[in-house]
Amino acid sequence: MTELFQARTVQEARELLAGHIRPDAGAEKVSLPDALGRRLAREVTAIDCVPGFDRSTMDGFAVRARDTFGASESLPAYLDLGGEVLMGREPVGELAVGQAWHIPTGGMLPPGADAVVMVEQTEELDHCTIGVNKPVAPGDHVVRAGEDIMSGAVMLPGGHLIRPQDLGLLSAAGVTEVFVSRRARVGIISTGDEVVEPTQRPGPGQVRDVNSYVLYGQALAAGARPELRGIVPDRFELLLEMLRRAVDECDMVLLSGGSSVGVRDVASQALDTLGEPGVLFHGVSIKPGKPTVGAVVNGKPVFGLPGHPVSAAVVFELFVTPLIKHGCYPDNPLEFPVRARLLRNMRSAAGREDFIRVKLALDNGDITAEPVLGKSGLISTLVRADGLAYIPAEKEGVEAGEYISVKLF
Amino acid sequence: MTELFQARTVQEARELLAGHIRPDAGAEKVSLPDALGRRLAREVTAIDCVPGFDRSTMDGFAVRARDTFGASESLPAYLDLGGEVLMGREPVGELAVGQAWHIPTGGMLPPGADAVVMVEQTEELDHCTIGVNKPVAPGDHVVRAGEDIMSGAVMLPGGHLIRPQDLGLLSAAGVTEVFVSRRARVGIISTGDEVVEPTQRPGPGQVRDVNSYVLYGQALAAGARPELRGIVPDRFELLLEMLRRAVDECDMVLLSGGSSVGVRDVASQALDTLGEPGVLFHGVSIKPGKPTVGAVVNGKPVFGLPGHPVSAAVVFELFVTPLIKHGCYPDNPLEFPVRARLLRNMRSAAGREDFIRVKLALDNGDITAEPVLGKSGLISTLVRADGLAYIPAEKEGVEAGEYISVKLF
Repeated sequence: MTELFQARTVQEARELLAGHIRPDAGAEKVSLPDALGRRLAREVTAIDCVPGFDRSTMDGFAVRARDTFGASESLPAYLDLGGEVLMGREPVGELAVGQAWHIPTGGMLPPGADAVVMVEQTEELDHCTIGVNKPVAPGDHVVRAGEDIMSGAVMLPGGHLIRPQDLGLLSAAGVTEVFVSRRARVGIISTGDEVVEPTQRPGPGQVRDVNSYVLYGQALAAGARPELRGIVPDRFELLLEMLRRAVDECDMVLLSGGSSVGVRDVASQALDTLGEPGVLFHGVSIKPGKPTVGAVVNGKPVFGLPGHPVSAAVVFELFVTPLIKHGCYPDNPLEFPVRARLLRNMRSAAGREDFIRVKLALDNGDITAEPVLGKSGLISTLVRADGLAYIPAEKEGVEAGEYISVKLF
Repeated sequence: MTELFQARTVQEARELLAGHIRPDAGAEKVSLPDALGRRLAREVTAIDCVPGFDRSTMDGFAVRARDTFGASESLPAYLDLGGEVLMGREPVGELAVGQAWHIPTGGMLPPGADAVVMVEQTEELDHCTIGVNKPVAPGDHVVRAGEDIMSGAVMLPGGHLIRPQDLGLLSAAGVTEVFVSRRARVGIISTGDEVVEPTQRPGPGQVRDVNSYVLYGQALAAGARPELRGIVPDRFELLLEMLRRAVDECDMVLLSGGSSVGVRDVASQALDTLGEPGVLFHGVSIKPGKPTVGAVVNGKPVFGLPGHPVSAAVVFELFVTPLIKHGCYPDNPLEFPVRARLLRNMRSAAGREDFIRVKLALDNGDITAEPVLGKSGLISTLVRADGLAYIPAEKEGVEAGEYISVKLF
């Protein structure tokens, strides 16, 4: 039990979760335009070759390469104009030895041809003869049948996140529907006796719900189907009932709010009463975001996020975004891919990973990062920032002028 | 007229377009959850202060700071327990000189208090007295009324692209609906006598439409409302008719395909017949993507994109994405924010901006970029890449080991 209360590193916390999560949102068939940003539920293999024929990449002449060997400006290779390839049509007949056929970019090479000579490297001598000024090798200026996609090959692996170019690949191969993982339903619950809906006018001592909307936006941006499940008072039975229904109906549940010790205890108890294995860790060695509770119930991740909105948002990025996007915590992710020069000294405790809100700017081609200072309870500080910089656990701070790794919002 | 045929730099081409575009997709009111990724049509100002009262950021005791001045572990300041603040309630009464009131994180400071002492820095001596071991200054562990959002302040400027944290800011302020620019309708037309729909089985010499789906995905990812308007044969009248309708009905039109000179000429003529000012440039000094035609018709951008899918996708990123996201070409954009170490020499012509498909990996905390080689007609090369690296016009190449700027897909 005491082990539970020892703060975990991000890596340890992820491993604990990964050991118990069984992602199972199921699969569904969607048409190509709806597949963007979705994860393939299974690999997609190619039926046909793309292109289905040898294809010219230039405007020019289809030739047999060997007929051009040795050609030069002073001694061109003379070829007979034997035909013309029309776009989208099968060439009629066969290219004979010593012949050149007009071919447009994208045209199908006639049988007998194995290369294309660019029009710029030819001269038309009369209606039936051209001179070629430069030799071509077989395959020059040609996309071979199957060079883009080979029939039978795995075009995209299972789990692949579909980007615009993947839509292009699939449509090239005639795949118009794919099986993708269902969007994870992410249930979002706010707790706190002081929290009221944004539509309400807060009375003295009350504040409107902030976290639910930040988390909703983050979940939506990551590709999930978020659900605002409302605000629940800090009472064990109510919280437990709300959490139970959410775990039943959703694939993942986020409980946020309750920064005071009393409320956190109630939330932890409720999370641990939900089912097996229950709470896996209390606390992560990060700033902001330390008071995070990680649980898994029946294979579904359930997070008790800190009450401060900046903390909750940071924890979401670290623990929830990868699960939504990839269904797991990928090895070697490019989580903080932007390198920026820090503009002021920032302290950091050794043994703790720090995440700093930063405002980025361009300075002579260099990216600079100005820390946005302020309490993690202030959502406005996250609004003023362009990204989150990462200070590793082993560092005790970063000095102005040093480079840091940043994730853009 | 000859000037038109001089290839433009990216910057010049953007300026030409910007000089004639009149973005006017109109505004619409949306509820908060639907505002994510949208652009504010007008600034949003705050009506109330957030929080509406001085708020504790810690579990502890509300005090008058001056009552703790001089306190130390050896000589604590003794304060009388005068009351308790309940979450979400207005404190009853006023904190008197020499008093401390229990207060939870997020609780409202009682009148008379100006700071909070953390519970860790106190000891409870009996039921009605605590000792404070460390002095606090006024404002310590307190979020002041209006510290997050000040009433009357501009919370978000017009044109701002709404991110998850912005939803939080708006909900904190009780803003549940905002005016956003309508999603730009982007009409996508493919041309080419050889191009067939992905649902069709291509005959000899035919290929399925690739570009429409890549561009559809890119437009959707950028926040537009793309429309696939189909495939039109390379005939002037048909093309013109199709373009006319698209320009009438959409906010922006993309014509792609037609890499052969003959087809490009037909497309250019059609683009120039549409209306004023018509074609602004033929060709941009980039690779891939040189044969790009940029036009504006009645204030709406119309692009003739190259036929090769990789080229079309690169041109989209450079010229279309900023227009969709920002409604303009922003100054100083962070377009290629990731710095990666190139793993092989890449040649590049001086005077031309090059965009290289790269596969990224992590190597000891360093990001490496392996160029994905291959013809720009092969969509599979773009599928194998993780991003696009940029080589500026003044460089004649980049050597292995040099760092390059990359935009992630």
